[in-house]
Amino acid sequence: MKSISYLGPIGSYCELAAISKYSNEKLFPMPTIPSVIESVQDGITELGVVPIENSIEGSVTFTLDALIHNYTVNINSEIMLNISHSLISNKKLNLKKITKIFSHPQALSQCKLYISKNLPQAELINTSSTSAALENIIDQENTYAAIAHSRNAKSNNLSVLAEKIQDEKINITRFAVLSTEIASPTNKDKTSFCFDFSDIDKPGQLINVMKLFSDAKINITKIESRPSKKELGKYIFWMDINGHIDDQKLKDIFDQVKQMTSMLKIIGSYPMETNII
Amino acid sequence: MKSISYLGPIGSYCELAAISKYSNEKLFPMPTIPSVIESVQDGITELGVVPIENSIEGSVTFTLDALIHNYTVNINSEIMLNISHSLISNKKLNLKKITKIFSHPQALSQCKLYISKNLPQAELINTSSTSAALENIIDQENTYAAIAHSRNAKSNNLSVLAEKIQDEKINITRFAVLSTEIASPTNKDKTSFCFDFSDIDKPGQLINVMKLFSDAKINITKIESRPSKKELGKYIFWMDINGHIDDQKLKDIFDQVKQMTSMLKIIGSYPMETNII
Repeated sequence: MKSISYLGPIGSYCELAAISKYSNEKLFPMPTIPSVIESVQDGITELGVVPIENSIEGSVTFTLDALIHNYTVNINSEIMLNISHSLISNKKLNLKKITKIFSHPQALSQCKLYISKNLPQAELINTSSTSAALENIIDQENTYAAIAHSRNAKSNNLSVLAEKIQDEKINITRFAVLSTEIASPTNKDKTSFCFDFSDIDKPGQLINVMKLFSDAKINITKIESRPSKKELGKYIFWMDINGHIDDQKLKDIFDQVKQMTSMLKIIGSYPMETNII
Repeated sequence: MKSISYLGPIGSYCELAAISKYSNEKLFPMPTIPSVIESVQDGITELGVVPIENSIEGSVTFTLDALIHNYTVNINSEIMLNISHSLISNKKLNLKKITKIFSHPQALSQCKLYISKNLPQAELINTSSTSAALENIIDQENTYAAIAHSRNAKSNNLSVLAEKIQDEKINITRFAVLSTEIASPTNKDKTSFCFDFSDIDKPGQLINVMKLFSDAKINITKIESRPSKKELGKYIFWMDINGHIDDQKLKDIFDQVKQMTSMLKIIGSYPMETNII
């Protein structure tokens, strides 16, 4: 049995992602993203699951920056989870009677239109997670509601007042599964890496790196600039490309990238996930 | 006298930035970034000041996404502010006696090393702003401290226990000044714009756009990918380049960019700010 850490608390979307892939393994909730990454790097757990990108909010910059600057673990696989928010209360309540809605600020903001149309009277209260929001309604006699995944309602004997209340119906979060090992090649892989340049005022440097891949007909699926943290306007670039680092063609290109950059770090080669759960 | 909205509350770093440039104008604190942008778009204030990028945390994605998706105001100028955090209390306290530290989560995280070395015993408590943190110590008899700018200590008769306690000594925030008008050309301008492509699986599209600028020896100073919000892996690109949109050479290039993209939006041409206050 494998041991797997994930960004908690119990009931979080990250737990849902971890369970979907590792239902028979031992799962450990951790309080923060760095504590998940550290548990993997220090060998306390074999794998760790952290959110890395959401289709509405964009990259989880905290995860990117930790993998760029502070740790040496690899992305080993990925999990795609369809995020669906429900309005939950302790007992069946008329929507007009609800006085307070508890949830994580991101979930509240993703349901903004629904709330302003159906619950304009309700006060919105931020909680540290969607699971923490439920604590305000479990076993309580009140007119409060929480926004969380409906799965959490069932396990806590709560009422689901409305499902799929998020404004954008497509709301997918991509989770990275971290390991100290690089995944073996399949025939459909992705490679994540980051790099920077010592001279920021030389136009065309980034294009030259990108051109190596496009000339070889290798698709760049993601490009993100993150601050170097040393100087405003100096960036570290994060890229995802199609292919596995064990492929000789890619190895040759990365040898050239190394010559053109002042830092190059491979974050992992791993199977491209197309299945959304 | 001009009317200028900014991201409040009073005492915020954004107010500090606004005052530095508009000390003789009428300033209005607003509760959120969208409310600043709306006040400019609706003509309630002539200008609005919002944070757009920090040298450690990266882009303020909330500002970028609002300017990309929801509003039509222009960036008209920029302000660069050196962020410096101080440890503040109501009376002179021995650091070892401090039991709680209040501040915005970003400020607490930026002072992590200092806190773990000098105040390992203190409990860290998140507040909605650095100004809100001060409310926990003003006129209070307690062993609490707050992290905020030392300017706020002086105006509230508080003690500054330590200055410049942030871990990275270079911590600069860039603020955008918004207007419904485009700034007139100077000889040192920047242009911000965003665009996307209808077909996401065509390698080389982004490179072709970037190449137009680098072939014309125009420096790209920032490139950021933001989610389209419609599909995971589909991005809208934000770029800053040197030059003013009124320049004929740039106009010709943007005519070509329009042909190559499915959406192109100019966010503003404005003087490049080199002075850090």
